[in-house]
Amino acid sequence: MKYAIIGCGAVGIYYGGRLAEAGNEVHFLFNSDYDFVKQNGLNIKSVNGDFVLSDINAYKDSSQMPKCDVIIVCLKTTNNNLLNNILPPILHKNSIVILIQNGLNLEQELTQSFPNIGIIGGMAFICSNKIGKGAINHLDYGKLTLGVFQNVSEDIFSEICSDFENAGVPIEKSDNLLHSRWKKLVWNIPYNGMTVVLNSSTDALMNNPSSRQLIYDLMLEVIEAANYCGANIEKEFADQMMVYTDNMRPYNPSMKLDFDFARPLEIRAIYSNPIKSAKENGFIMKKTQVIEQQLSFINQKNLEKRGNL
Amino acid sequence: MKYAIIGCGAVGIYYGGRLAEAGNEVHFLFNSDYDFVKQNGLNIKSVNGDFVLSDINAYKDSSQMPKCDVIIVCLKTTNNNLLNNILPPILHKNSIVILIQNGLNLEQELTQSFPNIGIIGGMAFICSNKIGKGAINHLDYGKLTLGVFQNVSEDIFSEICSDFENAGVPIEKSDNLLHSRWKKLVWNIPYNGMTVVLNSSTDALMNNPSSRQLIYDLMLEVIEAANYCGANIEKEFADQMMVYTDNMRPYNPSMKLDFDFARPLEIRAIYSNPIKSAKENGFIMKKTQVIEQQLSFINQKNLEKRGNL
Repeated sequence: MKYAIIGCGAVGIYYGGRLAEAGNEVHFLFNSDYDFVKQNGLNIKSVNGDFVLSDINAYKDSSQMPKCDVIIVCLKTTNNNLLNNILPPILHKNSIVILIQNGLNLEQELTQSFPNIGIIGGMAFICSNKIGKGAINHLDYGKLTLGVFQNVSEDIFSEICSDFENAGVPIEKSDNLLHSRWKKLVWNIPYNGMTVVLNSSTDALMNNPSSRQLIYDLMLEVIEAANYCGANIEKEFADQMMVYTDNMRPYNPSMKLDFDFARPLEIRAIYSNPIKSAKENGFIMKKTQVIEQQLSFINQKNLEKRGNL
Repeated sequence: MKYAIIGCGAVGIYYGGRLAEAGNEVHFLFNSDYDFVKQNGLNIKSVNGDFVLSDINAYKDSSQMPKCDVIIVCLKTTNNNLLNNILPPILHKNSIVILIQNGLNLEQELTQSFPNIGIIGGMAFICSNKIGKGAINHLDYGKLTLGVFQNVSEDIFSEICSDFENAGVPIEKSDNLLHSRWKKLVWNIPYNGMTVVLNSSTDALMNNPSSRQLIYDLMLEVIEAANYCGANIEKEFADQMMVYTDNMRPYNPSMKLDFDFARPLEIRAIYSNPIKSAKENGFIMKKTQVIEQQLSFINQKNLEKRGNL
């Protein structure tokens, strides 16, 4: 299998790095880090053991890359519009795209431009931060949940999962991608937004009784929405996620980091799409809407500050 | 009529100052400003004309004050617990208390300690800021809505209203205090909380489409809650309040100022009490709850910063 990594941030570098370290052929598409990485390679600090990849296949333009069998997309969803240009040069007729991203309906969106392509949805349960050019710090966890969306055979899916597992990445195979995506949202919707709106880390939100209750209320609303959409999640999953977060070390979710660095927030994928899906299925996510609207205000102010608008 | 002003901030100084300037006998209770005001009097900048009251009846302890006929309470509702000590020395058996405060159920709370006292509820529609010791800047508006809560005769009520009107304060007599209090909340619940949570002035919130929609959604939720509680407010009142705010000059509501100066936020009166009343009448204010919980988190962090906890 020939792998491509599109989007070399904290997640892309980690999973691509693991695959490459284990001997797989991996081609990395970089943006601003290209020159540095071409010279210095990748530097991965990890709770599971640090490693350096001094000689990697690095590109700054996908037209220079070979056709790949598995294209792992770890872009911010706010950049998914770039895929229309990035993907065509590296696709052959059996290429498979894995979207390791947070949010809902990303696979459906991809089929608008690539209707028949093989698609796997991926969710990373990982605490990993970018700490420099081509350098990340993997702090905790690391499991990848993968589920076929369309046009991927059982054999190929198993082969990909094995490649990850042989590279030290625990894989959970999902036979219900919708269920898995909504389960991830039960965590992402409260914590991504609340750490931004209240400008706080997860532990501060968990230690205050009011914000803790709001987190829990949001989880229950996401579960209710999920169930309207046919995802079938038990209420008790909210309690499990509270315990899971209590046991995490204090952590800034990706949206909080995007906020701190005045990058665009992933509001559409994580908030607007779920709100829309729930509404289409007869449920109004009232509390989640408040967070979405607050984030949209903050996002605009943040981008104006950065001068990106 | 002998008047007392309890709580000499931007609102208390304005209305007390107007009454005194018009020749009424007014007794002012001060806290930290006492020494300065005793020497220098009150300094009132106002769109309706500046004035100075160089010689006023100032006190730092209510036990030094005479018994008064009308006691105007302009404290922050977070300090209403102090009334149990402040009021007894200045009450005679026909004294009337006017609560010029934002929020709900304040009159009911007062009757817990003073069950049979005459009570008028008051709502100030005024943009006024404290700018120094004994000094305020009255920027805009100034109307006072007054409604009898209990045990005030029509004659006495009219006499009080006339005193205000003769002092240049427009009065709107309300014959339905519950209705008037909820109407005020249609403005206060969205703007007080959102200017704090999003750390913005009213005009910034109105100019962004997402926060503007959230403001409007919150207004509709408050109106729905009000109607469950029997207050009978038309939906169109939300549209009127949007226009009213669009036409206001950019303004920081009192809660935003409290936040900026790390003072306690009036969460109980403006949020918790309405949420509780609505719930008792069969309606859950889901969006307002989110704001309340966020404010509670911010309030605690703010007071910790100030070292008040």
